[in-house]
Amino acid sequence: MRISALAAEAGVPLATVKFYLREGLLHPGVASSATQASYDGSHVRRLRLIRALIGSVGLSVQQVRAILQLVDDPGDDLYATLGRAVSALPPAVHEASGNDPYPRARAALEALGQIYDPHFPAVAQLEAALAAAEAAGMPISEERLLEYGRRLHEIAAFDLERMPPEPHAAVEYTVLGTALYEPVILALRRLAHQDVAAGRAVRP
Amino acid sequence: MRISALAAEAGVPLATVKFYLREGLLHPGVASSATQASYDGSHVRRLRLIRALIGSVGLSVQQVRAILQLVDDPGDDLYATLGRAVSALPPAVHEASGNDPYPRARAALEALGQIYDPHFPAVAQLEAALAAAEAAGMPISEERLLEYGRRLHEIAAFDLERMPPEPHAAVEYTVLGTALYEPVILALRRLAHQDVAAGRAVRP
Repeated sequence: MRISALAAEAGVPLATVKFYLREGLLHPGVASSATQASYDGSHVRRLRLIRALIGSVGLSVQQVRAILQLVDDPGDDLYATLGRAVSALPPAVHEASGNDPYPRARAALEALGQIYDPHFPAVAQLEAALAAAEAAGMPISEERLLEYGRRLHEIAAFDLERMPPEPHAAVEYTVLGTALYEPVILALRRLAHQDVAAGRAVRP
Repeated sequence: MRISALAAEAGVPLATVKFYLREGLLHPGVASSATQASYDGSHVRRLRLIRALIGSVGLSVQQVRAILQLVDDPGDDLYATLGRAVSALPPAVHEASGNDPYPRARAALEALGQIYDPHFPAVAQLEAALAAAEAAGMPISEERLLEYGRRLHEIAAFDLERMPPEPHAAVEYTVLGTALYEPVILALRRLAHQDVAAGRAVRP
Protein backbone atom coordinates (compact mmCIF):
# COMPACT_ATOMS: atom_id res chain seq x y z
CA MET A 1 0.00 0.00 0.00
CA ARG A 2 1.02 3.62 -0.42
CA ILE A 3 1.98 5.83 2.49
CA SER A 4 -1.41 7.58 2.47
CA ALA A 5 -3.20 4.22 2.73
CA LEU A 6 -0.81 3.20 5.54
CA ALA A 7 -1.63 6.36 7.47
CA ALA A 8 -5.35 5.78 7.05
CA GLU A 9 -5.09 2.10 8.00
CA ALA A 10 -3.14 2.82 11.18
CA GLY A 11 -5.21 5.90 12.07
CA VAL A 12 -2.15 8.15 12.20
CA PRO A 13 -1.86 11.51 10.34
CA LEU A 14 0.30 11.37 7.22
CA ALA A 15 2.72 14.01 8.56
CA THR A 16 3.20 11.88 11.69
CA VAL A 17 3.98 8.79 9.61
CA LYS A 18 6.61 10.79 7.70
CA PHE A 19 8.05 12.05 10.99
CA TYR A 20 8.38 8.49 12.34
CA LEU A 21 10.08 7.45 9.08
CA ARG A 22 12.57 10.33 9.36
CA GLU A 23 13.23 9.51 13.01
CA GLY A 24 13.85 5.89 12.10
CA LEU A 25 11.10 4.57 14.38
CA LEU A 26 9.29 3.16 11.35
CA HIS A 27 11.23 1.02 8.87
CA PRO A 28 11.27 2.27 5.24
CA GLY A 29 8.89 0.82 2.69
CA VAL A 30 10.03 -1.01 -0.43
CA ALA A 31 10.80 1.52 -3.18
CA SER A 32 8.31 1.05 -6.01
CA SER A 33 9.54 4.03 -8.03
CA ALA A 34 11.93 6.94 -7.59
CA THR A 35 9.40 8.83 -5.48
CA GLN A 36 7.16 6.13 -4.07
CA ALA A 37 7.45 3.27 -1.61
CA SER A 38 5.17 0.43 -0.75
CA TYR A 39 4.17 -0.48 2.82
CA ASP A 40 2.66 -3.62 4.30
CA GLY A 41 1.12 -5.06 7.45
CA SER A 42 4.43 -4.87 9.32
CA HIS A 43 4.27 -1.08 9.00
CA VAL A 44 0.69 -0.91 10.24
CA ARG A 45 1.62 -3.04 13.23
CA ARG A 46 4.66 -0.93 14.02
CA LEU A 47 2.69 2.31 13.71
CA ARG A 48 0.09 1.01 16.17
CA LEU A 49 2.86 0.14 18.61
CA ILE A 50 4.49 3.58 18.28
CA ARG A 51 1.16 5.34 18.62
CA ALA A 52 0.33 3.35 21.76
CA LEU A 53 3.67 4.12 23.38
CA ILE A 54 3.63 7.82 22.50
CA GLY A 55 -0.10 8.56 22.58
CA SER A 56 -1.46 6.33 25.35
CA VAL A 57 1.61 5.82 27.51
CA GLY A 58 3.11 9.26 26.91
CA LEU A 59 6.68 8.17 26.12
CA SER A 60 9.13 10.41 24.27
CA VAL A 61 10.48 9.55 20.81
CA GLN A 62 13.79 8.70 22.51
CA GLN A 63 12.15 6.28 24.94
CA VAL A 64 10.18 4.65 22.13
CA ARG A 65 13.37 4.25 20.11
CA ALA A 66 15.02 2.42 23.01
CA ILE A 67 12.08 0.02 23.28
CA LEU A 68 11.88 -0.57 19.51
CA GLN A 69 15.57 -1.47 19.46
CA LEU A 70 14.83 -4.20 21.98
CA VAL A 71 11.82 -5.38 19.94
CA ASP A 72 13.96 -5.52 16.79
CA ASP A 73 16.97 -7.11 18.43
CA PRO A 74 15.89 -9.15 21.46
CA GLY A 75 19.33 -10.77 21.68
CA ASP A 76 20.10 -14.13 23.23
CA ASP A 77 18.91 -13.51 26.78
CA LEU A 78 15.21 -12.88 26.26
CA TYR A 79 14.34 -12.45 29.93
CA ALA A 80 17.03 -9.81 30.42
CA THR A 81 15.69 -8.02 27.35
CA LEU A 82 12.13 -8.14 28.67
CA GLY A 83 13.35 -6.63 31.94
CA ARG A 84 15.15 -3.83 30.10
CA ALA A 85 12.09 -3.13 27.94
CA VAL A 86 9.79 -2.83 30.98
CA SER A 87 12.29 -0.62 32.78
CA ALA A 88 12.10 1.84 29.87
CA LEU A 89 8.46 2.46 30.83
CA PRO A 90 7.30 4.89 33.53
CA PRO A 91 7.58 5.39 36.43
CA ALA A 92 11.19 6.56 36.38
CA VAL A 93 12.96 5.25 39.48
CA HIS A 94 16.02 6.40 41.33
CA GLU A 95 18.47 3.57 41.68
CA ALA A 96 19.88 3.61 45.21
CA SER A 97 23.20 2.25 46.32
CA GLY A 98 24.73 1.11 49.57
CA ASN A 99 24.58 -2.00 51.65
CA ASP A 100 20.83 -2.63 51.70
CA PRO A 101 19.35 0.04 49.42
CA TYR A 102 15.77 -1.32 49.30
CA PRO A 103 15.02 -2.73 52.77
CA ARG A 104 11.21 -2.56 52.49
CA ALA A 105 11.09 -4.16 49.04
CA ARG A 106 13.61 -6.82 50.09
CA ALA A 107 11.58 -7.73 53.17
CA ALA A 108 8.37 -7.79 51.13
CA LEU A 109 9.80 -10.09 48.47
CA GLU A 110 11.30 -12.35 51.13
CA ALA A 111 7.89 -12.59 52.81
CA LEU A 112 6.37 -13.48 49.44
CA GLY A 113 9.07 -16.04 48.72
CA GLN A 114 9.98 -14.25 45.50
CA ILE A 115 13.32 -13.45 43.91
CA TYR A 116 14.97 -10.26 45.17
CA ASP A 117 17.27 -8.66 42.61
CA PRO A 118 18.16 -5.04 43.52
CA HIS A 119 19.09 -4.33 39.90
CA PHE A 120 15.55 -4.85 38.68
CA PRO A 121 13.94 -1.36 38.49
CA ALA A 122 10.59 -2.55 39.86
CA VAL A 123 12.40 -3.18 43.17
CA ALA A 124 13.17 0.55 43.52
CA GLN A 125 9.60 1.23 42.41
CA LEU A 126 8.21 -1.06 45.14
CA GLU A 127 10.53 0.48 47.74
CA ALA A 128 9.30 4.00 46.89
CA ALA A 129 5.66 2.88 46.98
CA LEU A 130 6.06 1.12 50.34
CA ALA A 131 7.94 4.10 51.80
CA ALA A 132 5.21 6.52 50.67
CA ALA A 133 2.49 4.39 52.29
CA GLU A 134 4.53 4.20 55.49
CA ALA A 135 5.15 7.96 55.57
CA ALA A 136 1.42 8.60 55.23
CA GLY A 137 0.77 6.47 58.31
CA MET A 138 -0.76 3.62 56.26
CA PRO A 139 2.05 1.07 55.91
CA ILE A 140 1.25 -2.11 53.99
CA SER A 141 0.70 -4.82 56.61
CA GLU A 142 2.20 -8.26 56.08
CA GLU A 143 -1.34 -9.65 55.79
CA ARG A 144 -2.14 -7.20 52.99
CA LEU A 145 1.17 -7.80 51.27
CA LEU A 146 0.54 -11.55 51.18
CA GLU A 147 -3.04 -11.05 49.95
CA TYR A 148 -2.05 -8.64 47.17
CA GLY A 149 1.13 -10.54 46.34
CA ARG A 150 -0.60 -13.89 45.91
CA ARG A 151 -3.31 -12.53 43.61
CA LEU A 152 -0.84 -10.55 41.52
CA HIS A 153 1.43 -13.56 41.20
CA GLU A 154 -1.52 -15.50 39.78
CA ILE A 155 -2.19 -12.67 37.33
CA ALA A 156 1.50 -12.60 36.36
CA ALA A 157 1.54 -16.37 35.78
CA PHE A 158 -1.48 -15.98 33.50
CA ASP A 159 0.29 -13.16 31.62
CA LEU A 160 3.45 -15.19 31.09
CA GLU A 161 1.55 -18.29 29.95
CA ARG A 162 0.08 -16.24 27.12
CA MET A 163 3.35 -14.63 26.05
CA PRO A 164 4.03 -15.41 22.38
CA PRO A 165 7.09 -17.65 21.99
CA GLU A 166 8.60 -15.64 19.12
CA PRO A 167 11.13 -13.20 20.71
CA HIS A 168 10.16 -9.99 18.83
CA ALA A 169 6.50 -10.61 19.59
CA ALA A 170 7.37 -11.46 23.21
CA VAL A 171 9.04 -8.07 23.74
CA GLU A 172 6.07 -6.25 22.17
CA TYR A 173 3.62 -8.26 24.29
CA THR A 174 5.56 -7.53 27.47
CA VAL A 175 5.87 -3.80 26.82
CA LEU A 176 2.23 -3.33 25.83
CA GLY A 177 0.95 -5.77 28.43
CA THR A 178 2.67 -3.65 31.05
CA ALA A 179 1.99 -0.17 29.69
CA LEU A 180 -1.59 -0.75 28.52
CA TYR A 181 -2.88 -3.37 30.93
CA GLU A 182 -1.76 -1.57 34.12
CA PRO A 183 -4.44 1.14 33.68
CA VAL A 184 -7.00 -1.62 33.11
CA ILE A 185 -5.96 -3.29 36.37
CA LEU A 186 -6.26 -0.07 38.37
CA ALA A 187 -9.67 0.77 36.89
CA LEU A 188 -10.90 -2.78 37.59
CA ARG A 189 -9.81 -2.54 41.23
CA ARG A 190 -11.64 0.77 41.69
CA LEU A 191 -14.77 -0.69 40.09
CA ALA A 192 -14.51 -3.81 42.23
CA HIS A 193 -14.40 -1.55 45.30
CA GLN A 194 -17.59 0.08 44.12
CA ASP A 195 -19.18 -3.31 43.47
CA VAL A 196 -18.25 -4.66 46.91
CA ALA A 197 -19.31 -1.42 48.60
CA ALA A 198 -22.68 -1.40 46.82
CA GLY A 199 -23.29 -4.93 48.05
CA ARG A 200 -22.70 -3.69 51.59
CA ALA A 201 -24.69 -0.49 51.27
CA VAL A 202 -27.93 -2.33 50.56
CA ARG A 203 -27.56 -4.45 53.67
CA PRO A 204 -29.29 -3.04 56.76
CA MET B 1 2.97 20.89 71.11
CA ARG B 2 4.18 24.08 69.47
CA ILE B 3 4.13 24.59 65.71
CA SER B 4 7.87 23.89 65.43
CA ALA B 5 7.46 20.55 67.22
CA LEU B 6 4.49 19.75 64.98
CA ALA B 7 6.58 20.41 61.86
CA ALA B 8 9.38 18.20 63.17
CA GLU B 9 6.99 15.41 64.20
CA ALA B 10 5.28 15.32 60.80
CA GLY B 11 8.50 15.78 58.84
CA VAL B 12 7.22 18.88 57.06
CA PRO B 13 9.12 22.23 56.86
CA LEU B 14 7.76 24.92 59.20
CA ALA B 15 7.03 27.29 56.30
CA THR B 16 4.95 24.56 54.66
CA VAL B 17 2.96 23.99 57.86
CA LYS B 18 2.21 27.72 57.99
CA PHE B 19 1.19 27.66 54.33
CA TYR B 20 -1.25 24.79 54.94
CA LEU B 21 -2.68 26.70 57.93
CA ARG B 22 -3.19 29.83 55.81
CA GLU B 23 -4.78 27.77 53.03
CA GLY B 24 -7.14 26.19 55.53
CA LEU B 25 -5.96 22.64 54.75
CA LEU B 26 -4.75 22.27 58.34
CA HIS B 27 -7.12 23.19 61.19
CA PRO B 28 -5.89 25.88 63.61
CA GLY B 29 -4.32 24.92 66.91
CA VAL B 30 -5.75 25.94 70.27
CA ALA B 31 -4.53 29.44 71.18
CA SER B 32 -2.29 29.22 74.23
CA SER B 33 -1.34 32.89 74.22
CA ALA B 34 -1.78 35.90 71.96
CA THR B 35 0.99 34.70 69.64
CA GLN B 36 1.11 30.96 70.21
CA ALA B 37 -1.09 27.97 69.53
CA SER B 38 -0.93 24.38 70.64
CA TYR B 39 -1.18 21.42 68.27
CA ASP B 40 -1.89 17.75 68.86
CA GLY B 41 -1.95 14.34 67.22
CA SER B 42 -4.84 15.33 64.97
CA HIS B 43 -2.58 17.92 63.35
CA VAL B 44 0.24 15.44 62.84
CA ARG B 45 -2.18 13.01 61.23
CA ARG B 46 -3.65 15.67 58.97
CA LEU B 47 -0.20 16.88 57.93
CA ARG B 48 0.81 13.33 56.96
CA LEU B 49 -2.33 13.03 54.87
CA ILE B 50 -1.73 16.37 53.11
CA ARG B 51 1.91 15.53 52.49
CA ALA B 52 0.99 12.16 51.01
CA LEU B 53 -1.60 13.67 48.68
CA ILE B 54 0.61 16.55 47.54
CA GLY B 55 4.05 14.94 47.73
CA SER B 56 3.50 11.31 46.76
CA VAL B 57 0.33 11.54 44.68
CA GLY B 58 1.09 14.95 43.18
CA LEU B 59 -2.29 16.59 43.79
CA SER B 60 -2.77 20.36 43.77
CA VAL B 61 -3.77 22.29 46.90
CA GLN B 62 -7.22 22.69 45.35
CA GLN B 63 -7.62 18.93 44.81
CA VAL B 64 -6.43 18.20 48.34
CA ARG B 65 -8.93 20.72 49.71
CA ALA B 66 -11.77 18.93 47.91
CA ILE B 67 -10.70 15.60 49.41
CA LEU B 68 -10.24 17.03 52.91
CA GLN B 69 -13.75 18.48 52.80
CA LEU B 70 -15.07 14.96 52.21
CA VAL B 71 -12.90 13.60 55.05
CA ASP B 72 -14.20 16.31 57.39
CA ASP B 73 -17.81 16.04 56.32
CA PRO B 74 -18.56 12.55 54.99
CA GLY B 75 -22.31 13.25 55.04
CA ASP B 76 -25.05 10.64 55.35
CA ASP B 77 -24.31 8.58 52.25
CA LEU B 78 -20.85 7.26 53.02
CA TYR B 79 -20.52 5.17 49.84
CA ALA B 80 -21.35 8.14 47.61
CA THR B 81 -18.76 10.17 49.52
CA LEU B 82 -16.12 7.46 49.08
CA GLY B 83 -16.85 7.46 45.34
CA ARG B 84 -16.47 11.23 45.15
CA ALA B 85 -13.23 11.13 47.12
CA VAL B 86 -11.69 8.51 44.81
CA SER B 87 -12.82 10.41 41.73
CA ALA B 88 -10.83 13.43 42.95
CA LEU B 89 -7.67 11.35 42.44
CA PRO B 90 -5.84 10.95 39.13
CA PRO B 91 -6.28 9.96 36.38
CA ALA B 92 -8.58 12.74 35.21
CA VAL B 93 -11.28 11.26 32.98
CA HIS B 94 -13.46 12.75 30.32
CA GLU B 95 -17.07 12.05 31.05
CA ALA B 96 -18.81 11.03 27.84
CA SER B 97 -22.46 11.39 27.04
CA GLY B 98 -24.89 9.80 24.62
CA ASN B 99 -26.81 6.60 24.48
CA ASP B 100 -24.10 4.10 25.39
CA PRO B 101 -21.03 6.20 26.20
CA TYR B 102 -18.84 3.40 27.61
CA PRO B 103 -19.58 0.29 25.55
CA ARG B 104 -16.34 -1.56 26.34
CA ALA B 105 -16.54 -0.91 30.06
CA ARG B 106 -20.22 -1.84 30.14
CA ALA B 107 -19.59 -5.13 28.34
CA ALA B 108 -16.64 -5.87 30.64
CA LEU B 109 -18.61 -5.25 33.82
CA GLU B 110 -21.54 -7.28 32.49
CA ALA B 111 -19.16 -10.16 31.76
CA LEU B 112 -17.83 -9.85 35.32
CA GLY B 113 -21.34 -9.70 36.79
CA GLN B 114 -20.55 -6.36 38.41
CA ILE B 115 -22.59 -3.19 38.78
CA TYR B 116 -22.37 -0.83 35.80
CA ASP B 117 -22.95 2.82 36.75
CA PRO B 118 -21.85 5.22 33.97
CA HIS B 119 -21.62 8.05 36.48
CA PHE B 120 -18.80 6.41 38.40
CA PRO B 121 -15.54 7.92 37.04
CA ALA B 122 -13.68 4.59 37.06
CA VAL B 123 -16.06 3.47 34.30
CA ALA B 124 -14.71 6.18 31.96
CA GLN B 125 -11.22 5.24 33.15
CA LEU B 126 -11.80 1.57 32.26
CA GLU B 127 -13.31 2.51 28.89
CA ALA B 128 -10.23 4.60 28.01
CA ALA B 129 -7.86 1.82 29.12
CA LEU B 130 -9.73 -0.85 27.13
CA ALA B 131 -9.89 1.40 24.05
CA ALA B 132 -6.14 2.09 24.22
CA ALA B 133 -5.34 -1.64 24.41
CA GLU B 134 -7.67 -2.30 21.48
CA ALA B 135 -6.14 0.50 19.36
CA ALA B 136 -2.67 -0.95 19.95
CA GLY B 137 -3.83 -4.29 18.57
CA MET B 138 -3.78 -5.96 22.01
CA PRO B 139 -7.42 -5.93 23.16
CA ILE B 140 -8.18 -7.50 26.54
CA SER B 141 -9.65 -10.93 25.81
CA GLU B 142 -12.67 -12.11 27.78
CA GLU B 143 -10.49 -14.81 29.33
CA ARG B 144 -8.02 -12.20 30.56
CA LEU B 145 -10.77 -9.90 31.76
CA LEU B 146 -12.29 -12.67 33.86
CA GLU B 147 -8.88 -13.67 35.24
CA TYR B 148 -7.90 -10.11 36.18
CA GLY B 149 -11.40 -9.19 37.32
CA ARG B 150 -11.76 -12.14 39.68
CA ARG B 151 -8.39 -11.54 41.38
CA LEU B 152 -8.98 -7.81 41.71
CA HIS B 153 -12.43 -8.40 43.14
CA GLU B 154 -10.83 -10.57 45.82
CA ILE B 155 -8.32 -7.80 46.54
CA ALA B 156 -11.15 -5.24 46.70
CA ALA B 157 -13.14 -7.41 49.11
CA PHE B 158 -10.06 -7.64 51.34
CA ASP B 159 -9.66 -3.85 51.18
CA LEU B 160 -13.27 -3.18 52.13
CA GLU B 161 -13.22 -5.68 55.00
CA ARG B 162 -10.42 -3.67 56.58
CA MET B 163 -12.03 -0.27 56.10
CA PRO B 164 -12.40 1.47 59.47
CA PRO B 165 -16.08 1.87 60.44
CA GLU B 166 -15.74 5.49 61.55
CA PRO B 167 -16.73 7.66 58.53
CA HIS B 168 -13.87 10.22 58.65
CA ALA B 169 -11.33 7.42 58.93
CA ALA B 170 -13.12 5.48 56.17
CA VAL B 171 -12.72 8.35 53.71
CA GLU B 172 -9.03 8.74 54.60
CA TYR B 173 -8.47 4.99 54.26
CA THR B 174 -10.19 4.89 50.89
CA VAL B 175 -8.30 7.86 49.47
CA LEU B 176 -4.89 6.69 50.68
CA GLY B 177 -5.62 3.03 49.96
CA THR B 178 -6.31 4.04 46.37
CA ALA B 179 -3.60 6.66 45.84
CA LEU B 180 -0.80 4.93 47.75
CA TYR B 181 -1.58 1.25 47.27
CA GLU B 182 -2.05 1.42 43.48
CA PRO B 183 1.70 1.96 42.91
CA VAL B 184 2.40 -0.98 45.25
CA ILE B 185 0.08 -3.18 43.18
CA LEU B 186 1.75 -2.25 39.89
CA ALA B 187 5.25 -2.79 41.29
CA LEU B 188 4.20 -6.18 42.73
CA ARG B 189 2.81 -7.29 39.35
CA ARG B 190 6.05 -6.34 37.59
CA LEU B 191 8.08 -8.18 40.20
CA ALA B 192 5.81 -11.21 39.96
CA HIS B 193 6.43 -11.24 36.20
CA GLN B 194 10.14 -11.31 36.91
CA ASP B 195 9.69 -14.08 39.45
CA VAL B 196 7.61 -16.24 37.09
CA ALA B 197 9.97 -15.54 34.17
CA ALA B 198 13.04 -16.46 36.23
CA GLY B 199 11.39 -19.75 37.13
CA ARG B 200 10.99 -20.44 33.42
CA ALA B 201 14.42 -19.29 32.39
CA VAL B 202 16.19 -21.90 34.52
CA ARG B 203 14.18 -24.71 32.94
CA PRO B 204 15.88 -26.31 29.94
